[in-house]
Amino acid sequence: MKAFMDKDFLLTTPTAQTLYHAYAEQMPVMDYHCHINPKEIWEDRQFENITQVWLGGDHYKWRLMRAAGVEEKYVTGNATDREKFQKWAETLATAVGNPLYHWSHLELRRFFGYEGILNGDTAEEVWQLCNAKLQEKDMSVRNLILRSHVTLICTTDDPVDTLEYHQKLAADASFPVTVLPAWRPDKAMNIEAPGWMDYLAQLSAVAGKQIASFADMKEALRVRMAYFHANGCRLSDHALEYVMYVPASEEAVEAIFAKRLRGQAVTREEELTYKTAFMGFVGREYKKLDWAMQLHYGCKRNNNGLMFRLLGPDTGYDCINNYTPSAQLADFLGSFADSGELPRTIVYSLNPADDAVIDSVIGCFQNSDAVGKVQHGSAWWFNDHIMGMRQQIMTLASQGRLAGFVGMLTDSRSFLSYPRHEYFRRILCEYLGDQVENGLFPNDLATLGRIAQDISYNNADRYFHFPRK
Amino acid sequence: MKAFMDKDFLLTTPTAQTLYHAYAEQMPVMDYHCHINPKEIWEDRQFENITQVWLGGDHYKWRLMRAAGVEEKYVTGNATDREKFQKWAETLATAVGNPLYHWSHLELRRFFGYEGILNGDTAEEVWQLCNAKLQEKDMSVRNLILRSHVTLICTTDDPVDTLEYHQKLAADASFPVTVLPAWRPDKAMNIEAPGWMDYLAQLSAVAGKQIASFADMKEALRVRMAYFHANGCRLSDHALEYVMYVPASEEAVEAIFAKRLRGQAVTREEELTYKTAFMGFVGREYKKLDWAMQLHYGCKRNNNGLMFRLLGPDTGYDCINNYTPSAQLADFLGSFADSGELPRTIVYSLNPADDAVIDSVIGCFQNSDAVGKVQHGSAWWFNDHIMGMRQQIMTLASQGRLAGFVGMLTDSRSFLSYPRHEYFRRILCEYLGDQVENGLFPNDLATLGRIAQDISYNNADRYFHFPRK
Amino acid sequence: MKAFMDKDFLLTTPTAQTLYHAYAEQMPVMDYHCHINPKEIWEDRQFENITQVWLGGDHYKWRLMRAAGVEEKYVTGNATDREKFQKWAETLATAVGNPLYHWSHLELRRFFGYEGILNGDTAEEVWQLCNAKLQEKDMSVRNLILRSHVTLICTTDDPVDTLEYHQKLAADASFPVTVLPAWRPDKAMNIEAPGWMDYLAQLSAVAGKQIASFADMKEALRVRMAYFHANGCRLSDHALEYVMYVPASEEAVEAIFAKRLRGQAVTREEELTYKTAFMGFVGREYKKLDWAMQLHYGCKRNNNGLMFRLLGPDTGYDCINNYTPSAQLADFLGSFADSGELPRTIVYSLNPADDAVIDSVIGCFQNSDAVGKVQHGSAWWFNDHIMGMRQQIMTLASQGRLAGFVGMLTDSRSFLSYPRHEYFRRILCEYLGDQVENGLFPNDLATLGRIAQDISYNNADRYFHFPRK
Repeated sequence: MKAFMDKDFLLTTPTAQTLYHAYAEQMPVMDYHCHINPKEIWEDRQFENITQVWLGGDHYKWRLMRAAGVEEKYVTGNATDREKFQKWAETLATAVGNPLYHWSHLELRRFFGYEGILNGDTAEEVWQLCNAKLQEKDMSVRNLILRSHVTLICTTDDPVDTLEYHQKLAADASFPVTVLPAWRPDKAMNIEAPGWMDYLAQLSAVAGKQIASFADMKEALRVRMAYFHANGCRLSDHALEYVMYVPASEEAVEAIFAKRLRGQAVTREEELTYKTAFMGFVGREYKKLDWAMQLHYGCKRNNNGLMFRLLGPDTGYDCINNYTPSAQLADFLGSFADSGELPRTIVYSLNPADDAVIDSVIGCFQNSDAVGKVQHGSAWWFNDHIMGMRQQIMTLASQGRLAGFVGMLTDSRSFLSYPRHEYFRRILCEYLGDQVENGLFPNDLATLGRIAQDISYNNADRYFHFPRK
Repeated sequence: MKAFMDKDFLLTTPTAQTLYHAYAEQMPVMDYHCHINPKEIWEDRQFENITQVWLGGDHYKWRLMRAAGVEEKYVTGNATDREKFQKWAETLATAVGNPLYHWSHLELRRFFGYEGILNGDTAEEVWQLCNAKLQEKDMSVRNLILRSHVTLICTTDDPVDTLEYHQKLAADASFPVTVLPAWRPDKAMNIEAPGWMDYLAQLSAVAGKQIASFADMKEALRVRMAYFHANGCRLSDHALEYVMYVPASEEAVEAIFAKRLRGQAVTREEELTYKTAFMGFVGREYKKLDWAMQLHYGCKRNNNGLMFRLLGPDTGYDCINNYTPSAQLADFLGSFADSGELPRTIVYSLNPADDAVIDSVIGCFQNSDAVGKVQHGSAWWFNDHIMGMRQQIMTLASQGRLAGFVGMLTDSRSFLSYPRHEYFRRILCEYLGDQVENGLFPNDLATLGRIAQDISYNNADRYFHFPRK
Repeated sequence: MKAFMDKDFLLTTPTAQTLYHAYAEQMPVMDYHCHINPKEIWEDRQFENITQVWLGGDHYKWRLMRAAGVEEKYVTGNATDREKFQKWAETLATAVGNPLYHWSHLELRRFFGYEGILNGDTAEEVWQLCNAKLQEKDMSVRNLILRSHVTLICTTDDPVDTLEYHQKLAADASFPVTVLPAWRPDKAMNIEAPGWMDYLAQLSAVAGKQIASFADMKEALRVRMAYFHANGCRLSDHALEYVMYVPASEEAVEAIFAKRLRGQAVTREEELTYKTAFMGFVGREYKKLDWAMQLHYGCKRNNNGLMFRLLGPDTGYDCINNYTPSAQLADFLGSFADSGELPRTIVYSLNPADDAVIDSVIGCFQNSDAVGKVQHGSAWWFNDHIMGMRQQIMTLASQGRLAGFVGMLTDSRSFLSYPRHEYFRRILCEYLGDQVENGLFPNDLATLGRIAQDISYNNADRYFHFPRK
């Protein structure tokens, strides 16, 4: 029996252990996709207690508490932080098989030095320990990042953002980590959203460009892309219900745009047409700017109206959308490839049933523009657990080239979430170790160690053309 | 090498063995979903021979025989029971990897004390042994149930059923097992079915309510729900092609109802609209009555017209329907949640590719109404094998809260099928044992033993608010 | 740690090793589905160098090279064969987890006696060794086939093919292997294709039948089927985007046919209608002729327009199409079954998410016409790796009858690809061994050995009614 979460956590063979400890473990972290607030980095925020850090905005934990029948008062409501922590500890105690069990205990070990088990009985001692530690200087946001060996972070930013804190951080020589914006123009794309017109006004203002047509919109976006580029952005991010491909003439798209500008609602077909045109435009711009494009899809959001009205979006009420037609994904990517305009692209799905599909699609668009030009993104959100990560790794290896994978990201709002990279690396090394131990690959540690290090860090470092501090 | 089906069948680690033998094994059985005939319990039927019990109505076995090329004469035809048994024994002999191999041998061991292997050569000795045993009093239906430690059974019943045998059983103090009806109003919902008008006449008669509108239908259903409730029903069951959500106004639904009443066919869109309204109505009633709602979907029935004409429904000619849009499932549940009217709900799919999808959807609707208010139902029908059950357990654990799972059901027409609970518990304990043995969860047998017992019995006992005898 | 690719490659238990070495290994090979050129067999082609054999037309390898960022010049371009081999060796060196790693090394071991590892450093020695060996007489195409213990090959042929080389091979008593055509009438079915009218002219010419209607088309196809039958064909093959079922009257189909003949484009609905009628016709003919029908679907082809214009089809730019409605598959098969006209049929999908679906569908159409009358075809193309094959085997065993499976095929254009049968058999024996070692099946080597041999060869031998040389 392996001890719980010892130094060989998730590593069951000698080869896996060597690959992790002698190769992957030492690599720094490039967290190219997350949702942390750059202002908190700039201000080097210090947290008051563990509930703030852990339960402040983490809807993964909220969902688990609700599934355990915990009252909302203790989840997002007005219970005290101590009460909430108690409920969380009690919920966690039975969360066998859930990645939160592992992440939480990894964080307790790595950041707080707590080697015990969190449950209802130990909640008080953990509460005291963590809160005391959180007062120490090395638990400030910047120090958490540094201690995690993070060299670069991409946040997620709207085209209208000022990037004020990115600029301040870039100018601050005392903090060696590169913090870059990533461009996420969903609000400009979501023509069906009630707030789209208001958003246009904002975009228009920051871009200094009246937006009376799709052509104007494109011009405004170009202005803002240039601004993002000047501030170090080299990466975009798109949340799509699914990757649609409904091509139409420029005139047809302008007509849809005009209709919406007149305050009329667009049909579903018009929405998809506009979004296709929007994505076609920005994708070609990314290619010119040498940015990478992230497409993540298969999500249906805000499914609980009652709770949406109480708590708003991103509060734990999203699910997998299993309408994810691969034909449209292939046609969308093909529309760029046809003219040699496809940027480096990372495709993520929330539906694990899409793993094999994605690997088959990306294989159609590889070329010598880059190693692994089109990537199958890391298993995430509903899939960033052992089962999901292992399946993504195995499917990619079976159908494509695992060695070129750009690897893990936290996708997180928390400064304590970097151990998810460790979690991923252990799962990766376990897989690579299995290949050797089962006679499926030669016992060539130099090659496999390099692959482990590449996927842990080097591939992302080479794939993204990020300017460094 | 493990011996075949020894006491540690399916349990490969010491932890798994302890969890099963010291915790799960001793729990009673709550079979909250099956298709056995309450009349046979009341009459305490005794079977004449093993072919009657095993091959009388078990289309799982029929399918396997047909796949082996056995003539229909020996499956459902006019061959003798002995001949049929021979063909079954020969078919089973090569059924490596099929759950029928395990279920059949578990049943031979648990009920008949036969520790050998059934095949063409041993068929005669098994036939003799089983048939002799079947004459014994402790092999009557009631005794089979009692010997299986079953405390409660829910049958599956139509709103027009008299529940005569449930009443007789409730009044019979000599039989300690609670036998309750479950409400399955598919015939009232299936407006497109040829027999729908005839069914309405029956429903009208038993409810004492003329049905000339959807409003009348709802009133009639309310009458029958009250009757079922008075007879101990606390659970509904719905077989859906997929969980549809096509909302419409009350007027629009009444128009569809009226059209069909005039003898006209409804369109597919009208069918889906009516069914949405129907499900919306009954779901809200369940909430008021404190019933749980079971939704199972992803099935396409009666695919072999030739055999349907010969044998009718439920004879082994159904398949998985892979059109199962999660967006409509989420919207359907959301339509209740929006107003706080969602009853406790169990969602089952026949398509294993839906496992992750379902777990992501149910996570949007959990709250403190109940622990695990919305459940991912046990792997069943085409999935109630090691691979399917293990995947359902792992996916649920990875994305949600396994500890709150209400666990297994037989979904069976046979009084010998209770070892399927044993089969499930062993698979569950093997999974929990793996967590400990691999260092993924602390070696805390008290916690894991409680989880194993909860999933085996206690969770269902708490989740359903069944009245007990 | 197991040594890489030793004699027990993929066989981790004693039972698996025995099943492979004492049973499966010795069976001959029936390669009932491949894409090799019968002319090359007739001419007993000898290859000049290993690049010709390996990289001449193998788009699996091309995709992997492109994913590694190799320039197209070294993939399909004008680099020298030695340069291409170098790039391939370097690509292969890091292909951990990819079946090409295993296939390539199996081929080096089995045909060239090379026991080392191919990578950039060893490329020169492997190049020299292989090219020298390729000059030897026992490396001619016929000898490669004979050395691989192949008893029968089905090529893939168009209805207009002359079958000249099949006839020559049939008449050549010096070559004991049966080489038969398989009937693949995709061009006649693909009414939407630009070249359809030209193809009709060809078909008309070879059939000696003017084609002015669908009735004429059917007559022409009947003429050619008779010709194929006379030349030993007993097997058809259909590449479908998905298995569609859009039935219509004969008149409606004739109208679509006439429209297209007039040079007009058909709508998508008309296309599906015509294809349904086409498949309905040929399927019924197969039943009369005692041919088996292969349906493979879930593929979207030629997704990269730029590369299609440069290289044409089958060059590595296809992907999985995940629109594969099981309802239409079931209705299509049901349309034959309804009248007892369903031929023996093998259903393959490219989407592994369809495995359980297919097994559930085929279970509806089994009968005593044949053992395993409707088959779930072997995992192939994007799925012919350990993970994919193991899943196909496990799913089939869990839901149906593995013992009746007709097993592996190469689907290959290469004369070196027969070790894929070895690969499959090892995976199969590992699965069967696991069943015994884990106590899931009795330790009955006679039964399991027979099952292993049946799936390796005997089932296909019995299932297809091929005439032998």
